[in-house]
Amino acid sequence: MKEVRVDTPGGSYPIRIAPGRLDRLAESVPADATTLVLVTNPTVAALYGKRAEAALRASGKPVLRVELPDGEAYKDWQTLNLIFDAMLAHHCDRRAVIVALGGGVIGDVAGFAAAVYMRGIRFIQVPTTLLAQVDSSVGGKTAVNHPSGKNMIGAFYQPIAVEIDTDVLNTLPAREVSAGLAEVIKYGAILDAAFFAWCEAEAGRLRALEADALAAAIARSCELKAWVVSQDERETGLRAILNFGHTFAHAIEAGVGFGAWLHGEAVGCGMVQAAELSVLAAGLPRGDADRIRALVSAIGCPTYAPDLGTERWFDLMQGDKKTEGGQIRFILLPELGRAVRTPAAAEQVRRALDLTVARQAGEPSAIATLA
Amino acid sequence: MKEVRVDTPGGSYPIRIAPGRLDRLAESVPADATTLVLVTNPTVAALYGKRAEAALRASGKPVLRVELPDGEAYKDWQTLNLIFDAMLAHHCDRRAVIVALGGGVIGDVAGFAAAVYMRGIRFIQVPTTLLAQVDSSVGGKTAVNHPSGKNMIGAFYQPIAVEIDTDVLNTLPAREVSAGLAEVIKYGAILDAAFFAWCEAEAGRLRALEADALAAAIARSCELKAWVVSQDERETGLRAILNFGHTFAHAIEAGVGFGAWLHGEAVGCGMVQAAELSVLAAGLPRGDADRIRALVSAIGCPTYAPDLGTERWFDLMQGDKKTEGGQIRFILLPELGRAVRTPAAAEQVRRALDLTVARQAGEPSAIATLA
Repeated sequence: MKEVRVDTPGGSYPIRIAPGRLDRLAESVPADATTLVLVTNPTVAALYGKRAEAALRASGKPVLRVELPDGEAYKDWQTLNLIFDAMLAHHCDRRAVIVALGGGVIGDVAGFAAAVYMRGIRFIQVPTTLLAQVDSSVGGKTAVNHPSGKNMIGAFYQPIAVEIDTDVLNTLPAREVSAGLAEVIKYGAILDAAFFAWCEAEAGRLRALEADALAAAIARSCELKAWVVSQDERETGLRAILNFGHTFAHAIEAGVGFGAWLHGEAVGCGMVQAAELSVLAAGLPRGDADRIRALVSAIGCPTYAPDLGTERWFDLMQGDKKTEGGQIRFILLPELGRAVRTPAAAEQVRRALDLTVARQAGEPSAIATLA
Repeated sequence: MKEVRVDTPGGSYPIRIAPGRLDRLAESVPADATTLVLVTNPTVAALYGKRAEAALRASGKPVLRVELPDGEAYKDWQTLNLIFDAMLAHHCDRRAVIVALGGGVIGDVAGFAAAVYMRGIRFIQVPTTLLAQVDSSVGGKTAVNHPSGKNMIGAFYQPIAVEIDTDVLNTLPAREVSAGLAEVIKYGAILDAAFFAWCEAEAGRLRALEADALAAAIARSCELKAWVVSQDERETGLRAILNFGHTFAHAIEAGVGFGAWLHGEAVGCGMVQAAELSVLAAGLPRGDADRIRALVSAIGCPTYAPDLGTERWFDLMQGDKKTEGGQIRFILLPELGRAVRTPAAAEQVRRALDLTVARQAGEPSAIATLA
């Protein structure tokens, strides 16, 4: 078993990575827990619900299962309240522990529920998608969406443990594997050029879910993310580099309607866009931007963005929470493996959009490509 | 000006207490704030909205005013969302600062909005009721209600400053003065017998809003609360003593419908009930329970609780979040000025209810008395 430690002012906790962790969840259950609240969705429940529930019951604690509707479109207040309603109906107290079994949406919603139920209870992340395993389950960002934007309402709130069972990826749809790999290569792009090169060499084996390659990629991704989060839990500085590609990605997701693109697909495409902007505004060598585009394509993510119209693109990017004082700031790469946070001139952003938006760039619609 | 300092792991901030603070709010505005979001209600806005807004504009920052419907009945998700809707419509970023101008409901809702808007932004408390000045504005508890219980959804989240203008109490209805004084005498009951005796001597002057007595009572209350909060920000131990009377009080508020009793009125009555239970279960001398009942009466709060039926009383008290592991725990007094957290036998709780519930005790309905 690989174990990565995350240390933040808000809490210190282990990420345990191994095949079969799903059957050993009781090892993460605190002795004084009263009720275990297993939050999942019908898709994941059908695959892993019984096993997870049995593993939790092995701790001797009662398990309350709460199934949320599946998908980013349901990452909202109403869904959050389903958790509160069930917990209050069962008189769950402050020593109840939430166990989030699912992808990023389940982790974000269940984690936020833990952050605010009775002003904060403990929770355990059991991510079942590659994206959640390498990104959202690590670092304590929790949130729900608002009609005006993604992740607008949330909290920085750390789990007490993250349990990553690499076996569960075998049931993951190919699109979701690609979406998860987008975040994996992001860590290389912003922090570790050698890891980026390793991903280029292993792209085929990663897409084919070869176990040793996957476990290595997950562990390195978690290490890199844990290092960043330990430096800056509340995203006041360094942590912002994790948002490489995300200002474009959030605009894509909001522009086409949350759920039409997977978050990781949007991040993959957004990194290509951010790389183009990096060439224009941060001195990234042309060849490095081409390597990013090639690797995003190799892992199976779209490299052209939907044509939302330039004005709408700007609106959506300005509505993103990374706007400060009215100026759009981006995470850009001066070179592969190093990221900086910097504002970009509107003209440069417009040019980057021209180079990366489907119709403007003379490419087929990225949405059509996905369909 | 009196200044009380609050130090917690979640933040360190000043409570400034003086007449006329309302006109000097710009002193608490951080230099890097983008927008100031003044959250208030129509009642408070009519009295102090213009002055507060002018004082904030003196900082040179734009002010966005958000008025929430008035009252505990609106302390919910829907009201919370009015703040988010307004802030997102105005593209408020992470450097926006929320200013909560009002009583406990405004402070709790606006504070919780600050805790979760974009995962947490800064806020300033400007409490305009005595209850909020001595209790809810100090210590960082924020929350909204759920249909199943009061303050079920919230966060521990500290303001960057608390501004207490003692002049605003002159427009406070007498019932709200009494409700605030209930929390003032609570600090004496649980922590400081000498302060309790001082309150007995000054009860008449406090109810009459005599300025020197009030300022002294507010400052001492804030000091005592700040000391407790500095020891235990997240209510894992000592801080629970601040809930003296509150298990009964929350049952009253839920039982008669949120808003029918003022929170402080319910706390006043709840302290009489907790004192009776203390005689039965914690060895409080009979005479001290009588002094508590007499002082609660002297400050103008009800001393008999509504007749909800014993079963409903237990249900409501068990639904309260201070339940842990199925047993009801209470804050009780072994003596005046000292509080302990302890479970009580159902039979003792039943007896305390018999002694303090209106019809059972042969007293007129406490609600009728208030009407």
